[in-house]
Amino acid sequence: MPYGDLDQLAINTIRILAVDATAKSNSGHPGAPMGMAPVSHILFNKFMTFNPKNPDWLNRDRFVLSNGHGCMLQYALLHLFGYALSMDDIKNFRQVDSITPGHPEAHDTPGVEVTTGPLGQGFANAVGLAIAQAHSAAVFNKPGYDLINNHTYVFFGDGCAMEGIASEAASTAGHLQLGNLIAIYDDNHISIDGDTAVAFTEDVMKRFEAYGWHTQWVEQGDTDLDAIEAAIEKARQVKDKPSVIKLTTTIGYGSELQGTHGVHGNPLKSNDIKGVKQKFGFDPEKSFVVPQEVYDMYHKHADEGAAAEEEWNKLFAKYKEEHKELGADLARRLTRDLPEGWQEKLPTYKPSDPAIASRKLSESVLEAIHDVLPELISGSADLTGSNNTRWKKAVDFQPPSTGLGSWEGRYMRYGVREHGMAGIMNGMSAYGTIIPAGGTFLNFVSYAAGSVRLSALSHQRVIYIATHDSIGLGEDGPTHQPIETLAHFRALPNIMVWRPADGNETSAAYYMALTSKETPSIIALTRQNLPQLEGSTLGDAIKGGYTALENEGAQITLVSTGSEVSIALEAVKYLKEKKNITARVVSLPCWEVFDAQPKEYKLKVIPDGIPSLSVEVMSTMGWEKYSHEQFGLNRFGASGPYKEVYAKFEFTPEGIAKRAVATIDYYKEVKPLRSPINRAFLQLI
Amino acid sequence: MPYGDLDQLAINTIRILAVDATAKSNSGHPGAPMGMAPVSHILFNKFMTFNPKNPDWLNRDRFVLSNGHGCMLQYALLHLFGYALSMDDIKNFRQVDSITPGHPEAHDTPGVEVTTGPLGQGFANAVGLAIAQAHSAAVFNKPGYDLINNHTYVFFGDGCAMEGIASEAASTAGHLQLGNLIAIYDDNHISIDGDTAVAFTEDVMKRFEAYGWHTQWVEQGDTDLDAIEAAIEKARQVKDKPSVIKLTTTIGYGSELQGTHGVHGNPLKSNDIKGVKQKFGFDPEKSFVVPQEVYDMYHKHADEGAAAEEEWNKLFAKYKEEHKELGADLARRLTRDLPEGWQEKLPTYKPSDPAIASRKLSESVLEAIHDVLPELISGSADLTGSNNTRWKKAVDFQPPSTGLGSWEGRYMRYGVREHGMAGIMNGMSAYGTIIPAGGTFLNFVSYAAGSVRLSALSHQRVIYIATHDSIGLGEDGPTHQPIETLAHFRALPNIMVWRPADGNETSAAYYMALTSKETPSIIALTRQNLPQLEGSTLGDAIKGGYTALENEGAQITLVSTGSEVSIALEAVKYLKEKKNITARVVSLPCWEVFDAQPKEYKLKVIPDGIPSLSVEVMSTMGWEKYSHEQFGLNRFGASGPYKEVYAKFEFTPEGIAKRAVATIDYYKEVKPLRSPINRAFLQLI
Repeated sequence: MPYGDLDQLAINTIRILAVDATAKSNSGHPGAPMGMAPVSHILFNKFMTFNPKNPDWLNRDRFVLSNGHGCMLQYALLHLFGYALSMDDIKNFRQVDSITPGHPEAHDTPGVEVTTGPLGQGFANAVGLAIAQAHSAAVFNKPGYDLINNHTYVFFGDGCAMEGIASEAASTAGHLQLGNLIAIYDDNHISIDGDTAVAFTEDVMKRFEAYGWHTQWVEQGDTDLDAIEAAIEKARQVKDKPSVIKLTTTIGYGSELQGTHGVHGNPLKSNDIKGVKQKFGFDPEKSFVVPQEVYDMYHKHADEGAAAEEEWNKLFAKYKEEHKELGADLARRLTRDLPEGWQEKLPTYKPSDPAIASRKLSESVLEAIHDVLPELISGSADLTGSNNTRWKKAVDFQPPSTGLGSWEGRYMRYGVREHGMAGIMNGMSAYGTIIPAGGTFLNFVSYAAGSVRLSALSHQRVIYIATHDSIGLGEDGPTHQPIETLAHFRALPNIMVWRPADGNETSAAYYMALTSKETPSIIALTRQNLPQLEGSTLGDAIKGGYTALENEGAQITLVSTGSEVSIALEAVKYLKEKKNITARVVSLPCWEVFDAQPKEYKLKVIPDGIPSLSVEVMSTMGWEKYSHEQFGLNRFGASGPYKEVYAKFEFTPEGIAKRAVATIDYYKEVKPLRSPINRAFLQLI
Repeated sequence: MPYGDLDQLAINTIRILAVDATAKSNSGHPGAPMGMAPVSHILFNKFMTFNPKNPDWLNRDRFVLSNGHGCMLQYALLHLFGYALSMDDIKNFRQVDSITPGHPEAHDTPGVEVTTGPLGQGFANAVGLAIAQAHSAAVFNKPGYDLINNHTYVFFGDGCAMEGIASEAASTAGHLQLGNLIAIYDDNHISIDGDTAVAFTEDVMKRFEAYGWHTQWVEQGDTDLDAIEAAIEKARQVKDKPSVIKLTTTIGYGSELQGTHGVHGNPLKSNDIKGVKQKFGFDPEKSFVVPQEVYDMYHKHADEGAAAEEEWNKLFAKYKEEHKELGADLARRLTRDLPEGWQEKLPTYKPSDPAIASRKLSESVLEAIHDVLPELISGSADLTGSNNTRWKKAVDFQPPSTGLGSWEGRYMRYGVREHGMAGIMNGMSAYGTIIPAGGTFLNFVSYAAGSVRLSALSHQRVIYIATHDSIGLGEDGPTHQPIETLAHFRALPNIMVWRPADGNETSAAYYMALTSKETPSIIALTRQNLPQLEGSTLGDAIKGGYTALENEGAQITLVSTGSEVSIALEAVKYLKEKKNITARVVSLPCWEVFDAQPKEYKLKVIPDGIPSLSVEVMSTMGWEKYSHEQFGLNRFGASGPYKEVYAKFEFTPEGIAKRAVATIDYYKEVKPLRSPINRAFLQLI
């Protein structure tokens, strides 16, 4: 059917909604929505299948707005197609506690797949969504049951195209030949600094070709609806490569300032608004107007989506009969619950078991649980042998044509692309059938900070396996030894930072990471061997903190994590023998989980009346929450054999003892000596 | 002169030194040095000009080993050419307190230009070095005085090529047409996960072409010395583009395991070592052997470098006579001192001056000082109008052919490339004639965390202008509102994190950032207006913390930063009026600088005897160092007009007062009530 007036009306309705909403909030970005309204109309109304009444339907096509500042485009579409996003929500754009915040937030707004705005993230998320689709299709589709065949569409602008994370993800997608991924590049030549010619003169399509993508160019992206449709259709036919369509558009199309950065991040002036409305045949005196025929057209498409889901539900019901095990598995995965009894596979340890590096303990966990948790997809940013992230029988997730693995494979080779890995994992998690875990050195989780933040903000169950977690990595030296990293992520809301001290604590970290459906985790692991502790159990460790060594009449509590817990235990002996001082030890592998325990429990662990000293071989920042005094490392580390490095910085029983003595002495006269667990008032949450 | 036995001997000497050193330390990466010894020999001995006796000579050619794990290559070269790096230093490879750490560290090792190892960083640094060269040449070179014409050479491997930061920097370099930048890509097809075919199948040269680079391929990088020389020579002739040479090499060339990842990150086994030595004609029983003729050849080249410097010094002496002002400026810059009296240009403010956003105050500083500080190069990651980083008359640093600026330009358009920007700024700073300042939103400094860490570790005077520093940015919402960011960078050693409260504090932040020769700074600035404080002076603020409001008989100290200081001052009034409580206020714009003050001063600012409450609208982490209780925001923010967002989270005079009352009450009975400035023991530094 050729495009006609109704299509144009719908396109202009989208444009004007964006104009009105940004004007009302006096804030936001009208330019991208006005430029991308045509392709959005075609994509949503001609190509995408979705059911607005059930935004969680598994086989829906996924849409990601990587240039998330243009979110009024997405909100307008969600509203017009009938998602639970009302005109009042549109009018509340960018207001406190609205579901239409300044950038799209997956956790808060129905129909928003992933949280975008920080540039490049959505692009990487889309690659993750496409990976999850390809993998899930390979696992679950059977002859006659094409259960999972959705496309992932992503819009991105010049800003995303410049970001390194998008380059990393694009290179990965090209390698992986993700045929169901279609990216649409809003080539409007405008970013905040004005014409992109000031900084960005590369040949973007040639770059994508170099990555192995199929590329197309639609020159008249504002007006040539047929060419847009043809390009999307062509991209859908290309099955062995991801596709990118360069769409040359005019930012702020229709505005007096169209084609300039004046329309990028500022609402239109009132005269300009009137002019736009007149130009598009709208009443210049009215705002937030949607012609009924536009609603009708879009609701009809939505109804088709609802019908498609109904068909799919029938198909899935049949599938569950014919492929009982797989069907039950998929149904379970969609609840995000884990299989009953899975946790019995978690390894546990006795004190007599040998000393083992916690990165190896982590490997043992993966080895033990991968069979019972088919949704777990491990991987590494090119540090497989160092991160110990790969179980022995793992198959790589690879295009079969490479001869290196299969689509069913559950091991990701992310390459040296930490940020891309993290952004991809967020997308994989958002798909709904997968729990991604990815490894790098703890120090290089910082490269991925932008995406880790979004794992937390958007409630993704993503696991960062972060080995080489301290100066204990030894010879690689200060460039690789984390000092600030744990403090950084402990200060980030809604993420668990685990630093287990032994095997039981490592299993506890995985237990919590895997069962916390809405919280990502970083599990910090050692390169060096750690003894199995006397006092550790999985049951204690899942509380985030517990008394590892109780001692009647203790004069001080040593609070520690990871590799320093066993040194603290040695320090207790030293203190008794050399100083006749009685000390007790607390292991605190995860602050966030410990914080969530009842106050009574926490006060038993870190009691009133005696001082406490924290012991952790990195920044002391934040340890005041759990200790009166802090022993740490507020400087960069050193390159050398790790035991020598530890000795250099006095992380020895003697070094701890010396500071314990000073701490006891210092707090002798303070009355009452309260546990730091007690506070004058509660924090807002 | 054709290549002969002596060349081969030299190449093999480099290889075997890398083998011996990694074997002795039982740690490190022999593979890359063995593969890249041929190109290193040719580059250092045929093309590069440098004086090992003065590694700081301005016009030396710069060499960057971006694949820093191959640092034994660099250490071997530095030793062989006669830098102050002895054979004992080589034998001390990767030992505590050696000058041959596990990755190259610029601050510790003579001849190492930049600190590398975290992948991709060196590549971005090299782009920065080349920018600094191009700019300095444009500023200082005059007819007859080609003072500054060095090349920058960078080696990078597959790992660097995969990292987003390198993509960002390469795109920037292509746009900037940096003709004196020559990159050599060690195309050895091996990374830690094995063959790069598992994750990295893109066409790297095509990608660089897309960026605008000149590309070449040397197929026999292990053996074809003539082709290597010809390619470098050709690259030097290309003056309007950066050049990359893809050099196909065999990792671990000579080892039994050559061409496999077995030789990437592990020392060779002892049999293999013997075999390599025999193969190369060395005594298999001896280690750390350098044939005298190799020393002789290399020392001869070093002598030529020394002579070149001597010539240059004469030229510069003449230049200083003929171009007095420029000559004096260049000489001064090389000391890293600022011009006398420059600080008198810093704006100061009276309480009666209007309320201004600190990002605007920062702009006023740049406007005021740019004339007297010609070494200051500002810029932004595509947020110029939001970061307020550009003085009115600024000229862009651009290739003249673009018509957008000039090589003399002092304003950088970094594009939306935060990580690339930071890595480039590290290189610009390392060049020695420039102080780079670059802007982005505070939240997106996290994208650059990998490079910020290296600014700190390698002692670079780099300034991060970080605007939109809190929920005070309002409508953009949680994706853009920093919560954890200040905690993150406050936990990083050797960096100043400033959060000024008004105009005088903003000037103080710049004063300290510009005069601290070996410490980078992050200056966190508001989007919203801030009043000029009664109690602020530049002289007080440069202490990092001071009493902003003293009050006799105060019952509590409110300790705050940035936009919350004025709210805390309002809270004092509220407390007096509504609760008859007397409070005092401390402004603490920079923890690191305050920490360095004498204890006596700090105790005057945060005294014993009364409790203190910190007030900062982000993570409370770390504030326990300066306060007994903490009022902050340990959750994500909200999208809305900023005053409403502040009210939602109770960051109002009332909200602060409520918590002050609770704090006073809670500490009433504690005796003695010590200032948190007092500690039981000192931290190691």
